[in-house]
Amino acid sequence: AYQRHAHDFFMPEALREELQKKAEATFQVMPNSQLPTLDNYHTLVALDTSHRKSAAVFSYPSWVYKATSIKNGHMYTLRRLEGYRLTNERAIRSVKDWRRVNCGGVVSVIDAFTTRAFGDSSLIFVTNYHPLSKTLVEHHFTSTNRYGNRVSQAVPEPVLWSYVVQIASAIKAVHAASLAVRCMDPSKVILTDKGRIRLNACAVLDVVKFDAQRPLAELQQEDFIHFGKLILSIATNNLAVMTSPTLLGFVDQLSRTYTAEFRDTVVWLLTPAQTPGIKTVGELLSGISTHVVDVFDNSLHANDTLYSELNREVENGRIARLLMKLGTINERPEYEGNPQWSEQDGRYVIKMFRDFLFHQVDAEGKPVIDMGHIISCLNKVDAGSQEKITLTARDDQNIFVVSYNEIKKQVNAAWAELQKPSMRR
Amino acid sequence: AYQRHAHDFFMPEALREELQKKAEATFQVMPNSQLPTLDNYHTLVALDTSHRKSAAVFSYPSWVYKATSIKNGHMYTLRRLEGYRLTNERAIRSVKDWRRVNCGGVVSVIDAFTTRAFGDSSLIFVTNYHPLSKTLVEHHFTSTNRYGNRVSQAVPEPVLWSYVVQIASAIKAVHAASLAVRCMDPSKVILTDKGRIRLNACAVLDVVKFDAQRPLAELQQEDFIHFGKLILSIATNNLAVMTSPTLLGFVDQLSRTYTAEFRDTVVWLLTPAQTPGIKTVGELLSGISTHVVDVFDNSLHANDTLYSELNREVENGRIARLLMKLGTINERPEYEGNPQWSEQDGRYVIKMFRDFLFHQVDAEGKPVIDMGHIISCLNKVDAGSQEKITLTARDDQNIFVVSYNEIKKQVNAAWAELQKPSMRR
Ligand SMILES: Nc1ncnc2c1ncn2[C@@H]1O[C@H](COP(=O)(O)OP(=O)(O)OP(=O)(O)O)[C@@H](O)[C@H]1O
Ligand SMILES: Nc1ncnc2c1ncn2[C@@H]1O[C@H](COP(=O)(O)OP(=O)(O)OP(=O)(O)O)[C@@H](O)[C@H]1O
Ligand SMILES: [Mg+2]
Ligand SMILES: [Mg+2]
Repeated sequence: AYQRHAHDFFMPEALREELQKKAEATFQVMPNSQLPTLDNYHTLVALDTSHRKSAAVFSYPSWVYKATSIKNGHMYTLRRLEGYRLTNERAIRSVKDWRRVNCGGVVSVIDAFTTRAFGDSSLIFVTNYHPLSKTLVEHHFTSTNRYGNRVSQAVPEPVLWSYVVQIASAIKAVHAASLAVRCMDPSKVILTDKGRIRLNACAVLDVVKFDAQRPLAELQQEDFIHFGKLILSIATNNLAVMTSPTLLGFVDQLSRTYTAEFRDTVVWLLTPAQTPGIKTVGELLSGISTHVVDVFDNSLHANDTLYSELNREVENGRIARLLMKLGTINERPEYEGNPQWSEQDGRYVIKMFRDFLFHQVDAEGKPVIDMGHIISCLNKVDAGSQEKITLTARDDQNIFVVSYNEIKKQVNAAWAELQKPSMRR
Repeated sequence: AYQRHAHDFFMPEALREELQKKAEATFQVMPNSQLPTLDNYHTLVALDTSHRKSAAVFSYPSWVYKATSIKNGHMYTLRRLEGYRLTNERAIRSVKDWRRVNCGGVVSVIDAFTTRAFGDSSLIFVTNYHPLSKTLVEHHFTSTNRYGNRVSQAVPEPVLWSYVVQIASAIKAVHAASLAVRCMDPSKVILTDKGRIRLNACAVLDVVKFDAQRPLAELQQEDFIHFGKLILSIATNNLAVMTSPTLLGFVDQLSRTYTAEFRDTVVWLLTPAQTPGIKTVGELLSGISTHVVDVFDNSLHANDTLYSELNREVENGRIARLLMKLGTINERPEYEGNPQWSEQDGRYVIKMFRDFLFHQVDAEGKPVIDMGHIISCLNKVDAGSQEKITLTARDDQNIFVVSYNEIKKQVNAAWAELQKPSMRR
């Protein structure tokens, strides 16, 4: 027969480590931070990995911080545009339309406001926080070999298709909300989990370039061209694509590494529609539908994995809870002035069960260290199993035969007693 | 400032309950089962919810069991075809092609064999086990009102599209592996998680109808018609669709509740291609691509939810592990003949930490019961925090100021000592 072992109860190290690192990043604070506290956000931590002041994307230098909301204690990301002065109140109101976009491929926009807390006039965008995310620039354009030279490895075509599908899906949601992405620079698309990308910094250009009042249809058509450039730059491993006046040379490079279908898709994106015609994301999606389905199936598989890991972990939650109850009851120095409390009545059984659980020894008195035993006993208590066990007192004077269910009842009774308001006479 | 509470560490009740019920279903056994043990599978538990013996789908009555693999201890589902006699060895070998199909919308086929263990000659198909799944018949055709009459509620169109997309994706994988689904009866499609469906009982007809030797292309074309009937029967809430010689009346009903696009898709599925033309799943997918993307985005959202729940839960695993170590060390009656072991050297600090962790009292000596305190202390030990705490012995004689990191070291040292081979002199 099959025995469950401790490692069955814990998730694979790689996933655990990833989650662990993300938790650390989330809770990390900077002890002597010079950053201000804002009206609704405190404990700002800079997320920018370089101090390079660049106004290339938004025409204003921008800085990114993690911060804690005063209202609900959750973490958010703040993007600050340095030196921005709001001239038209309506500009900032355009952000509220973005709140309606709820799409797995778009970093959710929460709010925007101006502040003088940084000693200048700054514009702040609040978005969801995705711990340890990297921009596509950081992910694809910064790997160096051991001599410090940048190595450019061709990105596998399935990864590129997955990007194409995810961004197409994001654009669909954005265009359906009568908005345009506007900004699809490789530094403004972030990788949040394995293979998952999201459009970042949405809404910023809507505010900053509000006065230009460009028609939505025009901006949406432009999105396809930005999309094409983004994919082309990653596929050719060349950021010059983003600013190059001619793209022909880059497109030609694609044929060396990628299929004609991929190349044609990029060309479709880069080619403006013959006016008065327009391109739609529906058209794109229908053309690449088999890739959409492949990425969809990957996502289902990822779901299945997460679900079964969660299944495994939820057991740990129940076990941890029960262990905390046991720890709180056992060896309690005194309760309501009674130093014997933890060994009296039902608590005596709990004490014997504690020894049964933790202090098993073999025939030679050697400790038997088996988390599998501990876990399976705790699971049976938690489930209130009718199975009976024999508990022996340390002095061998008392022997009890009790079911796990009785132990469960005693634990809950003692736990309830500890929580009731003091009755001390 | 924001304080983390115990409930922050545990997942929402609904999801927890679902996982809990699935775990119970997985581990449930039938004490006095009359079911046999097979060569490689033991502890069979019947999954059929009725004793109705029906040969309608496979020409043989079939029964479904959950069973444990002797080889790896995992659970699988066995489908037994009663009274089947294998006449051609090659028939059963066709199952191995199915092992290559790895798709989120198909229940994975593991193996097939014949057995006499049930007292007859039976054919067994081994597939993955999905706890608490329901067939689409059970899910959509068996809800009754409080008078016991069947109620038929129209299935919302987004649910139907989600089914269409999932099945189309499954068919894509099956056809790409040079196979055909063949069997798409509503009783042979199962709902495994919220909204997730999977084609079940694949491979069965390949074996049972092996001798007919029908061409693959013909079977694949037939898949579209079966697919159309399946969706039509759910949309009209009428199982008669599956056997009716004419479907026109049913198709007409669709327009009352559903969009023209949905109706047209069903009609496309039901209409055979003009020979010598063929229909392909690619054609279908490109026609419904916007729905594919919608279902894809739902799946990404589901992923995000699972991921963040997992993030929350992973802490429990570390906490449970640490609590088990502490339990094993504290109050150990003796070690290598030394009854003082658990209170000597570094263990003395561990004992004091135990009191700090579990036995806090307020100014009046009343227990302070706060899982948040326990969890946060354990997290700091686990992370080896340099933060210092003051531990006081019960007799107030000894006061130690130690960092969580020192406690961590002591715990690991004691744990290692308990695990080393006996040194008893
Ligand atoms: N929503 C977010 N959640 C978590 N991290 C984020 C988020 N948005 C951005 N970041 C991270 O913050 C860092 C800075 O982002 P930013 O957009 O400023 O990129 P950059 O490379 O500094 O570009 P620029 O030169 O335009 O400032 C990146 O590492 C990015 O991954
Ligand atoms: N792979 C599986 N994992 C978990 N449960 C399954 C699996 N396959 C089938 N089941 C469950 O077993 C039960 C019986 O399935 P079965 O296919 O026999 O349906 P049925 O309604 O009994 O149809 P039939 O009349 O053809 O036997 C259903 O409740 C189904 O959800
Ligand atoms: Mg920056
Ligand atoms: Mg059955």
